[in-house]
Amino acid sequence: MLTLGQIAELIGAEVFPEDQKDAPVQALAPIEKAVTGTVTFLNGKKFEKLLDTSEATAIVCEPKYRKRAFNSTALLLHNMPYVAFARLMQHWFKKEDNWIGVSEKAHVHESASVGSEVSIHPFVSVGSGAKIGERVIIHSGVSIGENVEIGDDTLIHPNVSIYAESKIGRGVILQAGAVIGGDGFGFATDFLKGEHVKIPHAGNVILEDGVEVGANATIDRGVMGSTKIGRGSKIDNLVQVAHNVEIGQGCFLAAQAGIAGSTELGNYVILGGQVGVVGHLKIGDGVQVGAQSGIGKNCKPGSKWLGSPAIEGQDSKKSVIAFQKGPELRRRVKALEGELAEIRKHLSDKTQS
Amino acid sequence: MLTLGQIAELIGAEVFPEDQKDAPVQALAPIEKAVTGTVTFLNGKKFEKLLDTSEATAIVCEPKYRKRAFNSTALLLHNMPYVAFARLMQHWFKKEDNWIGVSEKAHVHESASVGSEVSIHPFVSVGSGAKIGERVIIHSGVSIGENVEIGDDTLIHPNVSIYAESKIGRGVILQAGAVIGGDGFGFATDFLKGEHVKIPHAGNVILEDGVEVGANATIDRGVMGSTKIGRGSKIDNLVQVAHNVEIGQGCFLAAQAGIAGSTELGNYVILGGQVGVVGHLKIGDGVQVGAQSGIGKNCKPGSKWLGSPAIEGQDSKKSVIAFQKGPELRRRVKALEGELAEIRKHLSDKTQS
Amino acid sequence: MLTLGQIAELIGAEVFPEDQKDAPVQALAPIEKAVTGTVTFLNGKKFEKLLDTSEATAIVCEPKYRKRAFNSTALLLHNMPYVAFARLMQHWFKKEDNWIGVSEKAHVHESASVGSEVSIHPFVSVGSGAKIGERVIIHSGVSIGENVEIGDDTLIHPNVSIYAESKIGRGVILQAGAVIGGDGFGFATDFLKGEHVKIPHAGNVILEDGVEVGANATIDRGVMGSTKIGRGSKIDNLVQVAHNVEIGQGCFLAAQAGIAGSTELGNYVILGGQVGVVGHLKIGDGVQVGAQSGIGKNCKPGSKWLGSPAIEGQDSKKSVIAFQKGPELRRRVKALEGELAEIRKHLSDKTQS
Repeated sequence: MLTLGQIAELIGAEVFPEDQKDAPVQALAPIEKAVTGTVTFLNGKKFEKLLDTSEATAIVCEPKYRKRAFNSTALLLHNMPYVAFARLMQHWFKKEDNWIGVSEKAHVHESASVGSEVSIHPFVSVGSGAKIGERVIIHSGVSIGENVEIGDDTLIHPNVSIYAESKIGRGVILQAGAVIGGDGFGFATDFLKGEHVKIPHAGNVILEDGVEVGANATIDRGVMGSTKIGRGSKIDNLVQVAHNVEIGQGCFLAAQAGIAGSTELGNYVILGGQVGVVGHLKIGDGVQVGAQSGIGKNCKPGSKWLGSPAIEGQDSKKSVIAFQKGPELRRRVKALEGELAEIRKHLSDKTQS
Repeated sequence: MLTLGQIAELIGAEVFPEDQKDAPVQALAPIEKAVTGTVTFLNGKKFEKLLDTSEATAIVCEPKYRKRAFNSTALLLHNMPYVAFARLMQHWFKKEDNWIGVSEKAHVHESASVGSEVSIHPFVSVGSGAKIGERVIIHSGVSIGENVEIGDDTLIHPNVSIYAESKIGRGVILQAGAVIGGDGFGFATDFLKGEHVKIPHAGNVILEDGVEVGANATIDRGVMGSTKIGRGSKIDNLVQVAHNVEIGQGCFLAAQAGIAGSTELGNYVILGGQVGVVGHLKIGDGVQVGAQSGIGKNCKPGSKWLGSPAIEGQDSKKSVIAFQKGPELRRRVKALEGELAEIRKHLSDKTQS
Repeated sequence: MLTLGQIAELIGAEVFPEDQKDAPVQALAPIEKAVTGTVTFLNGKKFEKLLDTSEATAIVCEPKYRKRAFNSTALLLHNMPYVAFARLMQHWFKKEDNWIGVSEKAHVHESASVGSEVSIHPFVSVGSGAKIGERVIIHSGVSIGENVEIGDDTLIHPNVSIYAESKIGRGVILQAGAVIGGDGFGFATDFLKGEHVKIPHAGNVILEDGVEVGANATIDRGVMGSTKIGRGSKIDNLVQVAHNVEIGQGCFLAAQAGIAGSTELGNYVILGGQVGVVGHLKIGDGVQVGAQSGIGKNCKPGSKWLGSPAIEGQDSKKSVIAFQKGPELRRRVKALEGELAEIRKHLSDKTQS
């Protein structure tokens, strides 16, 4: 239980009206379900009308709503209400009672080093030469290969596989089943023998601080050199990142997207779900790609793409409309051809007459 | 070994001709490979002609085939031959000799409760407060988080990860590597710091009775509230179900399909392989979506969709044809333009003359 | 450290000029980063110009470059430079010091047989009746079901799940999290009960010698009979292969591709990333399918396909161009309609005059 005043202090918001600062809060809730005793938030216009009808004890929202008449629901004014509410949730749902220790049912190679206050659960295997930082939490069934380095405060969910030589930063989160550092898909075909010769993958994977990787996502190691995911980039479930891809900072890769080998993404790139990007491309800072699109060429910074193959900006929507109206256009062209035939006939008749 | 009579009783079919009811059956087979001593089934028209040439001891098929002259192959008449044959297979291939017990090499937290006749294999980890029902089978390497509840007769294949607080119903089947209850892909971007703040996922996942989840499929937990999969819905391999999605009863989600956050599917919805559905949509009962389609808007009950972005019903096929004939249409338009130019010239000449 | 002469002998290349054969090599490098003391390779024309400016000690390349004047960088002449360099990498990066043994923390059923010189790591579970060949390496968390057979020199990365009865050949590589032999997606719908009855999967999976399966890829077992992957075929991460699919020799399936049930691929078929193939098709030898394409009909040997639904050969590119120029075409048709209307008016005026 916290008061509005305590919450305001926690997230750096202003209580409006101020005299509500002692109102008690028992829970957080989404705005459609917020009742007395809960705090919720307003992000964007969609639920704006609920400001006047909500029974929430308080709503985290932008300062511009201050003018609104008070109706028993107080406001927690903040310039970035969604960010403020996220920080409130992080505090509210913080797990206090984490078990700390190294399970007797785990396997930690004698040459591995393990920081203090770690939680290493049963059936975790830590290979030779691995270095585990402070306060790292590793859930059951995780496999950590030789010489892997894991930074402080990183959280690894069950059954994650981290191959040898991978470097994982601080505050990284790996969801269950993620595979970090598998061999990439590289083969040299011997046409005489009709045989695909495997390209050894002598490189590794580097995940910088604050990266999150989704469940069952796969990030392949480099052939030579590294596959890199930049600071704070977020990768969703079932995403494929191929060998020697380099991703900048703060990118979002939505579920089931795939990036082929050696492509470079700048900073704050957003790939929608099921997007595919071919290899050896340069995708500039801030590029945004719509869901299911296929990127086959370089994208300049800030450009927006949609379609498979992707088309830039507004053109893509027009092409889609043209696609959908294709049958109508075919009818119109057929009509034109008919009319022209008549006119030709009419003109030739006159000529002959 | 069973006789046709025994099989008929088992699946509620009629032996035709009746005097064949003592014929012995050694095996089941697909109709193309069915020989003497086997029972097979006929579903749909594709293999109808084999009724007269098959050497199978009997064919499970619809009563309408009763008229057919007998040619040493008997019939097992049933209104739903595929269902009847499925039930026969379930009986025929039933595994009798399941090992029962809790392996000494498993880890079951002392506060967890475990029903009778369970099979908990080596390297299974069961967290504090978890409740495992009767006759549950959990294969090696499975991780079960705190306070997870698992209903009777549920089967969990190797290396599945079930996060804390998940609720799994009765008779559920989870194929290997499935991840139930991972954090969803939710971040609030702090534009001042250029940092994506993680939205804690305080909700959970609920799988109702009879749900099946495919290998390496991922079902994320809710932010607040639950992600729900309705009774008897079947989810194929590598499918992504995002946070707070709600799926009704009896749905089919084919391999590699993905559903974004908070979208609701009705009952008996069918999504083809690699389909993508954007977030916050309502997909009505019985909607059918063709493979690789992209759904970007609400779909009314019973509607059929195809394409990316998807178009409803027959129009989609016409648009695809128009797309494929696009080059021809361009040639025709070019021709029209040429002819019109001539006609304009012709007319202006005449005017001047 | 090797000399150029030793390397040349290893890969069957010729040192040019010959007097360089004692030059020492400390490392391998990609051509853009090759410095003195390294060997690199030239494959295709892209980096040809670097032949004259590279500081590499030697470049593996085709004999045709022999004419080139010597500039301190020697050549290692070979008809298939990429293959030769792959073999060199395999030698160079070979791991000598693999731990050999069966971990006390593994579980091997007493009825299982295990070859000599195997490496079975902690938390590996080997079921009853399983047969593991010579020199097989099985990393932590792998689950091997009853009666599975694994050929000599096969390498299995962490947390792979292999279901009962699977047959894995020699020299196979399974990347982490791959699932071999899960139940396919097969149900018979009982319309009276509104219930999907599970089709038991009594078949298995057969991976022939030299197959590689990518991280978190899924290969389902047959309903009756086998799902087969032919000798030397390579499957990338997150690929889905459904029940009773049969894939020939030397195929490439790129990341996130999916093949529906009972489809047959010939030899040396190439599927691009995120390709989908519907069930019960025949895809001929040497067929090539572009990324994100959807194959809905049989493909004759050697044919090339692109698009969703896929179109054969060059037509597909033309259709895509037509799609992209759709909006322009609509404008042109609108213009034609306007002009025709004028001409009609003009002609009728004249008739009346």
